[in-house]
Amino acid sequence: MYAVRDDFMAAANRVSDLATYCRELAERSRVASRRLAAACGESKNAFLRDAARRIRAQAGRLLEANAADIEAAPGFGLTAAQIDRLRLDAGRIESIAAGLDAVAALPDPVGEVIEGSVRPNGLEIGKVRVPLGVVFFVYESRPNVTADAAAICVKSGNSVILRGGKEAAHSSAALVEQLWLALESAGLPRDAVLWVDRRERDAVSEFLRLSEFIDLAIPRGGRALIERVTRDARMPVIKHFSGNCHVYVDAAADLHMATRIVVNAKCQRPGVCNACESLLVHRAVAESWLPEVGRALGDAGVEIRGDETVCRLVPHAVPVREEDYGTEYLDLILSARVVDSLEDAAAHINRYGSKHSDAIVTDRLAAARAFAAAVDTAAVFVNASTRFHDGGEFGLGAEIGISTDKFHARGPCGLKELTTYKYIVYGAGHIRD
Amino acid sequence: MYAVRDDFMAAANRVSDLATYCRELAERSRVASRRLAAACGESKNAFLRDAARRIRAQAGRLLEANAADIEAAPGFGLTAAQIDRLRLDAGRIESIAAGLDAVAALPDPVGEVIEGSVRPNGLEIGKVRVPLGVVFFVYESRPNVTADAAAICVKSGNSVILRGGKEAAHSSAALVEQLWLALESAGLPRDAVLWVDRRERDAVSEFLRLSEFIDLAIPRGGRALIERVTRDARMPVIKHFSGNCHVYVDAAADLHMATRIVVNAKCQRPGVCNACESLLVHRAVAESWLPEVGRALGDAGVEIRGDETVCRLVPHAVPVREEDYGTEYLDLILSARVVDSLEDAAAHINRYGSKHSDAIVTDRLAAARAFAAAVDTAAVFVNASTRFHDGGEFGLGAEIGISTDKFHARGPCGLKELTTYKYIVYGAGHIRD
Repeated sequence: MYAVRDDFMAAANRVSDLATYCRELAERSRVASRRLAAACGESKNAFLRDAARRIRAQAGRLLEANAADIEAAPGFGLTAAQIDRLRLDAGRIESIAAGLDAVAALPDPVGEVIEGSVRPNGLEIGKVRVPLGVVFFVYESRPNVTADAAAICVKSGNSVILRGGKEAAHSSAALVEQLWLALESAGLPRDAVLWVDRRERDAVSEFLRLSEFIDLAIPRGGRALIERVTRDARMPVIKHFSGNCHVYVDAAADLHMATRIVVNAKCQRPGVCNACESLLVHRAVAESWLPEVGRALGDAGVEIRGDETVCRLVPHAVPVREEDYGTEYLDLILSARVVDSLEDAAAHINRYGSKHSDAIVTDRLAAARAFAAAVDTAAVFVNASTRFHDGGEFGLGAEIGISTDKFHARGPCGLKELTTYKYIVYGAGHIRD
Repeated sequence: MYAVRDDFMAAANRVSDLATYCRELAERSRVASRRLAAACGESKNAFLRDAARRIRAQAGRLLEANAADIEAAPGFGLTAAQIDRLRLDAGRIESIAAGLDAVAALPDPVGEVIEGSVRPNGLEIGKVRVPLGVVFFVYESRPNVTADAAAICVKSGNSVILRGGKEAAHSSAALVEQLWLALESAGLPRDAVLWVDRRERDAVSEFLRLSEFIDLAIPRGGRALIERVTRDARMPVIKHFSGNCHVYVDAAADLHMATRIVVNAKCQRPGVCNACESLLVHRAVAESWLPEVGRALGDAGVEIRGDETVCRLVPHAVPVREEDYGTEYLDLILSARVVDSLEDAAAHINRYGSKHSDAIVTDRLAAARAFAAAVDTAAVFVNASTRFHDGGEFGLGAEIGISTDKFHARGPCGLKELTTYKYIVYGAGHIRD
């Protein structure tokens, strides 16, 4: 049953030189990407549905591979919580399979005519969506990310080189094996999904040099990984950077709504990038509202690091330091500051924020519009929790990350964000005067 | 009259340290970009029209500044042709002013709602076009590029730092002075258009490090400049790389049309990026057509570097070397090769081309569609000359360059290509379960 994988690994191990290994993988991915770009939606969807079916059928094999990862986990220094996230069970395997079916059900982005016009001289100009080509995806996450990333890349017509974390190496390789079998069944090149099974740290740097074959690098993981990829990549990078997200409570806010939104944004899942890390409160409502929100957050176990006014009004608050304003805690900690105006709130966010998700709670239309215009961020929320910043919640169906860049793609990166376009121009012998 | 400029230069010269000078400019540009992002279309158009008016009114002053550049030109080793391109006259000044008026007449890209939806839970998701922020534009071109670039950047809500070539420094500075006066008249920040008047070569490297303030770098010039900017930039780059453009003449082509298109694509303006550099001919028509196109190209003074079959059929052809296939001649030289199939033509283009402009001449619908799908290029032309690859010809109105990248923007970069988007989400107290 491991024939496919063994065959692949034998080929990979024939070469001992890491640079040659990486170059060979990148070239194979480029070749596969040309075939994939021309593949019809039907075969891409057949691949996704067949992969889902195989993953359900091979749950036992996946659990076996996962057991090897779990066994090795303490040796990598993983905490109990991290080991729990790594663990597969019947429910998690079903949700991986369901994710593949969900991507199959999404419309195919490739071939969409984004714009079209006929010029005065009769030339017909079409701007048509096409795949980017080859994606190099470096990630540190749980096994399900392996299947999600492969599904999104293949559906958008891109081949992908997966460099997953060593902690989930057995689980991911077992998943990739099912993806290969499904690619072959669907008549698509197996190299459309390549798995880097040499574990040298330098493999990442090698791939990042190969801009000749790789069109895009996506790092997903801790700050150090993203900074390293950004520094070394010779191709474009979509960064899924930190989420230092703010909620600003305006002078004219529904304060009960404000409490619910702040508590939700901070506490509903504090370890994720769209959780709130910093609260800004207009001075006009500070006296009346801060004690209330302070109690609610205290009840939820949140440590508040506040400025002078916050500390005076919230008994359990501790003094904030300037570096707190720039910190993504990913924990039950919140920085809090009183501001004199909406403009001050926006200036604070533009200075300390990470251009991810920032919310205002207000009843004033003018304040909502001014805040939305002034804050330089991927997603502005008016009277809604920052926790909604997510490809699924936005209706994109699936995402490979949330971009904090402003270039090419901002916010959730789904199928469209992994495409580019080409102009296709029809004439009747047109020449230029 | 030089008060504005002298004032600026005095400020610039107060600091002697180049790094501090560059950082100060970048910071000022960032501050201006925030105001510009919020400016209404009316004031941006008022700026453009007023700048056009001033440039017409100050033609004498511009000619005077240009005379200083022309005088200095031989010292920079410019050829007679280069000096001619540098020269301003009444007609060229009028065309600079008309260019500004034309940009004023284009629709404002900022604020466009690109997509919008209401989610099942009632959240309203809007994807709204916004400026990128600060553009660093490094160019080696003629004085008119200074005005064009400033117009496109300001209209799209971006501030711009202009680092123009030393050859046109006096002309460009005189133009920028008129732009400053027009910005002030329109109530826009003068720092929206900054001119780098320190000439140290290292200034470019300094700016390329300042990703904290600069959102995009655009190099426009020779290969060495673009490679240097790509290597050193810590922010995204839109590259206007070489145009190694192809015309492929299919087995079932209108051969008279093919001759007209090849001669036009090669000869109408051989020194530009969308001129044809390489001809591919299907073997089925080589015998009958190559002598004809060879004569037409010979009459136009074109040197043909061909493979064996080409050399046999075209008396004045010389043998091609492999490196010719990768060369952008920008001159009356053409490489030529006979291929066995459309697939071979596409493979040749994907191997040697520069992803700029590639054409097919064919009567077969299936061939047109297959070629358009298979060739990985910014613009595919079917029965039309590659010379049409241009923002104006495509109806974009104005362009700051033609991108040979696949990321963010491909082909002509007009107003939209200098924007990004943000999500603006309206709720009614929505929190996430």
